[in-house]
Amino acid sequence: MKVGILGLGYWGPNLVRNFLSNGKVQKVVGCDQSADRTNLMKSRFLTLDVCSDYSELLKMDLDIIAIATPVDTHFKFAKKALESGKHIWVEKPFTATSDEAKELIELAEAKGLKIFVDHTFIYTGAVRKIRELIDNGDLGNIRYFDSVRINLGLFQHDVNVIWDLAPHDISIMNYAMPNVKPVAVSANGIANYYSHENVANLSVYFEENCYANFHVNWTSPVKIRRMILGGDKQMLVFNDMENIEKIKVYESSVVMNTKEKIHKALAQYRTGDMHSPKVNQTEALALGVAEFIDAIENNRKPLTSGEDGLDVVRILEASQESIKNKGKLIELK
Amino acid sequence: MKVGILGLGYWGPNLVRNFLSNGKVQKVVGCDQSADRTNLMKSRFLTLDVCSDYSELLKMDLDIIAIATPVDTHFKFAKKALESGKHIWVEKPFTATSDEAKELIELAEAKGLKIFVDHTFIYTGAVRKIRELIDNGDLGNIRYFDSVRINLGLFQHDVNVIWDLAPHDISIMNYAMPNVKPVAVSANGIANYYSHENVANLSVYFEENCYANFHVNWTSPVKIRRMILGGDKQMLVFNDMENIEKIKVYESSVVMNTKEKIHKALAQYRTGDMHSPKVNQTEALALGVAEFIDAIENNRKPLTSGEDGLDVVRILEASQESIKNKGKLIELK
Amino acid sequence: MKVGILGLGYWGPNLVRNFLSNGKVQKVVGCDQSADRTNLMKSRFLTLDVCSDYSELLKMDLDIIAIATPVDTHFKFAKKALESGKHIWVEKPFTATSDEAKELIELAEAKGLKIFVDHTFIYTGAVRKIRELIDNGDLGNIRYFDSVRINLGLFQHDVNVIWDLAPHDISIMNYAMPNVKPVAVSANGIANYYSHENVANLSVYFEENCYANFHVNWTSPVKIRRMILGGDKQMLVFNDMENIEKIKVYESSVVMNTKEKIHKALAQYRTGDMHSPKVNQTEALALGVAEFIDAIENNRKPLTSGEDGLDVVRILEASQESIKNKGKLIELK
Amino acid sequence: MKVGILGLGYWGPNLVRNFLSNGKVQKVVGCDQSADRTNLMKSRFLTLDVCSDYSELLKMDLDIIAIATPVDTHFKFAKKALESGKHIWVEKPFTATSDEAKELIELAEAKGLKIFVDHTFIYTGAVRKIRELIDNGDLGNIRYFDSVRINLGLFQHDVNVIWDLAPHDISIMNYAMPNVKPVAVSANGIANYYSHENVANLSVYFEENCYANFHVNWTSPVKIRRMILGGDKQMLVFNDMENIEKIKVYESSVVMNTKEKIHKALAQYRTGDMHSPKVNQTEALALGVAEFIDAIENNRKPLTSGEDGLDVVRILEASQESIKNKGKLIELK
Repeated sequence: MKVGILGLGYWGPNLVRNFLSNGKVQKVVGCDQSADRTNLMKSRFLTLDVCSDYSELLKMDLDIIAIATPVDTHFKFAKKALESGKHIWVEKPFTATSDEAKELIELAEAKGLKIFVDHTFIYTGAVRKIRELIDNGDLGNIRYFDSVRINLGLFQHDVNVIWDLAPHDISIMNYAMPNVKPVAVSANGIANYYSHENVANLSVYFEENCYANFHVNWTSPVKIRRMILGGDKQMLVFNDMENIEKIKVYESSVVMNTKEKIHKALAQYRTGDMHSPKVNQTEALALGVAEFIDAIENNRKPLTSGEDGLDVVRILEASQESIKNKGKLIELK
Repeated sequence: MKVGILGLGYWGPNLVRNFLSNGKVQKVVGCDQSADRTNLMKSRFLTLDVCSDYSELLKMDLDIIAIATPVDTHFKFAKKALESGKHIWVEKPFTATSDEAKELIELAEAKGLKIFVDHTFIYTGAVRKIRELIDNGDLGNIRYFDSVRINLGLFQHDVNVIWDLAPHDISIMNYAMPNVKPVAVSANGIANYYSHENVANLSVYFEENCYANFHVNWTSPVKIRRMILGGDKQMLVFNDMENIEKIKVYESSVVMNTKEKIHKALAQYRTGDMHSPKVNQTEALALGVAEFIDAIENNRKPLTSGEDGLDVVRILEASQESIKNKGKLIELK
Repeated sequence: MKVGILGLGYWGPNLVRNFLSNGKVQKVVGCDQSADRTNLMKSRFLTLDVCSDYSELLKMDLDIIAIATPVDTHFKFAKKALESGKHIWVEKPFTATSDEAKELIELAEAKGLKIFVDHTFIYTGAVRKIRELIDNGDLGNIRYFDSVRINLGLFQHDVNVIWDLAPHDISIMNYAMPNVKPVAVSANGIANYYSHENVANLSVYFEENCYANFHVNWTSPVKIRRMILGGDKQMLVFNDMENIEKIKVYESSVVMNTKEKIHKALAQYRTGDMHSPKVNQTEALALGVAEFIDAIENNRKPLTSGEDGLDVVRILEASQESIKNKGKLIELK
Repeated sequence: MKVGILGLGYWGPNLVRNFLSNGKVQKVVGCDQSADRTNLMKSRFLTLDVCSDYSELLKMDLDIIAIATPVDTHFKFAKKALESGKHIWVEKPFTATSDEAKELIELAEAKGLKIFVDHTFIYTGAVRKIRELIDNGDLGNIRYFDSVRINLGLFQHDVNVIWDLAPHDISIMNYAMPNVKPVAVSANGIANYYSHENVANLSVYFEENCYANFHVNWTSPVKIRRMILGGDKQMLVFNDMENIEKIKVYESSVVMNTKEKIHKALAQYRTGDMHSPKVNQTEALALGVAEFIDAIENNRKPLTSGEDGLDVVRILEASQESIKNKGKLIELK
């Protein structure tokens, strides 16, 4: 495999390192308009080739183009790459609108090319374990999904805190809970400092008896990354700030009383042991690279495909309309 | 002072104990229809008198009637007490509607009686310290107020989780931030088990550049009680699950870059030391009892007056309309 | 059962409350020279009888005398009680010397009376669970027992911090690990403020391949109560400061390499899941009272007998000689 | 400066990286008998020269030789380097015996060369802050120093867990508390798996009213790195497992009662706020490299000199004699 990587800013170097480390990759070319960045990358990675012009990159003999540029440029760069016959790797969020995402998916389909959207968390041992626990029925049906991701974070120029941080958590939700269907969202928040919100809450409604909430904040003095999945058999807490015990499964569940006892407690709780399964510590990005290459080689969709990217963008897009109207319910297209 | 206490269920015994312990209280009469409860209270508190009939209680020579019954009965019992010329102590939330609250306030005013609403947290050392830090300018202007109160909690028959848990946090917000004015709310959530929501998020908008969010849940496997106040000078975290270091003040703040640098980072952070002030550990309820008696003796409004109760009910009432319409923005009356 | 309780200071009131709550106890008499204390107890416990003279107490028709006085008075009071034909309950540590303990054990034996030493922790759900995990082989052989109990604690007039705090942990060790035999101790520490040590470390050697260490401190700014049991199959951490997850069992163990690989890593680790079993929350003291009464009724030794008390005193006594000689190894008598 | 680095195993690569990154270093040569290691280093660091023979390295035109080999080889390699006229950087612990350390110090003195012992922790922001707080009197006199460093750690072939882990903590103690003089030690522990102890406790006595304890363990299921410094004005906890709040200073102190009140509490506590100062996050090793180069350039002793290395080795050496005699008190030479 030969790979071109567009954008050598914050995340690009991680792509360079992980593609270079994959045994099936023969060549990696980094591309950025900034000579400072290409020079820095050259000095860090001996075997990396670089160029400064995207059209030049597209002319090279490459299999994959990875796009790590601001989100509002994803579409134009991705489209050109597909038109040049390249498989594409796109950073999250996939595109700035769901229409853009759909057009790329159709184009790739027409050309027999693969799209990989870099929902990195899907490749972590922790998220794999959550899916495994759900798949084998350990948690039962999930009644709510509660996510918090807050920190003193980098303000983005082009998007608000939901577009920046929530894609991680929404992609985890979509992956972990394949059997529920989100139908509408309500988002609230505030832009304390400039036009984009720095604190926000996003609520997601489903066809099923389930509810999700995402709390994101760029301006929190403490760093919290925690999800709670309320299953009707067991409940799970994923605390990504823990080094070791990232996942805790609680033998807790709600047991509703029958009507005869309605004058007493409505609900009781079954509580029991807590169990923290060991999770795989392999770097997620390396597993993502391997997955994409394997998907290309076997002509199948990768685990985080264009459709998965679209599913996240649909929710982000609706959240934008909702937050500008202070919580107005927006149905997903 | 002579005190009658109506309702000897979950919270009533705490009122009995604290009124009995106050040096200015000569007599306490507990009132409950259930003979089991009055007998149990008699056996625990030697000097307590009891009766089973509220109209009987109202005829006694008492100064204060404390009402610890379900919220939808607060109004009728409180009204009768005021009509009988008694000062009233009412558990939170004050009333089931803002109209009820207004009528009680007017009635008390007309009769020269005092209303105390039991927003207990206002009397904790931690909340007093938060107010003190805000009053003396240590935090600057508060840009957001983020509250989480989740647990495996008792389901209520008559109200949802917002009405049950959020009054604590809303009353803290109103007390801590006297200089901002809430104007509208949006609430989302789900009723997984019966007609009342067990998981919910409440967003509050203000006239000022400020935003609040309240996350409440009766069905969480872990117990979290945490507030973050994002000041523009310093930021504060109140973790009520800590035994000692309940309050941490972070020398963290957002510093926006000037326009010349707009191509670089939009915002930088100033970070520094963290400081955890010692907080008074006196039982809040004892301080609440003392405050009410002092307010009566000095013919002044208590710190948690009927108006304060009304301010909380206004937000709860609006949240109810909003949550039934999935996040619809409801302006506060 | 009729019970007399000598000493109504710090711990006595807990004994009063728990004996009064036991269904098999018809009568409880509290005894203390201080009229303030007996009056206070009378006001809190309606059905309690009181007296101020121990010889008077001994003349009453009682089955059990519980002794909650300073440790250097345990022997004389306990001896008189046994001579008066009463079963005895003695607070920890059992006696000030092992000779005293032996004499009381022999006297009780001769008179057909029972001795209960109040090693309260043995009756907690957490310690019962630890013993259960060891008994059923989950942990394998215990290679080390590491205990820390530090806090801003009450200085004792008559004993050092080892005598005050370590009896809890030594009794837990003895109970949890019935199959190892301690043979010698070495103790170090310092008396920063007066004649008794306020910081100390006690090391215990065994006949078997096992080692224990107890770190105690009255002058620590933070409160830590944690034990680690290093089993050769699994390892256990008991953190008594946790409200819920007090016990964590780690699938961690040491796997020594064979000699061929001696130039590489000497040992590898097997690590796996962590499991936190639910523990019974019943108040330990209530279970201790029930155990003693049952032992008397069935004419058997209670779980925490005089012999168990002696085993702890032997170690304390040796630690005293060792610490006065800065770590000198003292063999247990 | 031109630098040769002997030993490219576990720690050597960190030395290579940090010397290469220092602006005053023109040349770095790595030396290891293993061709695998030198090749690996060459591939990672483009500008690194390598050789496989130490005598060859000594013949090169170099200013500094850094020695990162097993401790029992430090002396012979360091002596040769000094004899060749090179300044030496030696990993901790400095030497296997205090006599070796003294000989190296004398040799360096005679030749006008500098010795740097790599007590890395002295260059961390946290330890610098501790010293600063002690120097400016914030803590008062330190009454005890309590250190815990436990983990599932790499077993060493040649030394026990005290020699492996405690040098970090002893060097911190010596640096932080320059005004107390250790005079004797008592060490206890067990070798569960082979000839070297894997769990141990080391107590240190001082001329002054002060005591230190070091608890180290290679076989703990949980990782703890915590020190408590009990000052008579304030107390400090250094928790190195925290990412941000590594240091907490507690306004806690012991206040002894006067004799009149001796029948009451012996000691009271003054408790107050807690303060967590921000600490510098610069990599310690980079600061160590800069310090050594500056010391050479200005012909002064570095902050962690041969004498500092000797002070640590004296305690280790005594601990060895003590632990083999189960806690026997060994006076420091």
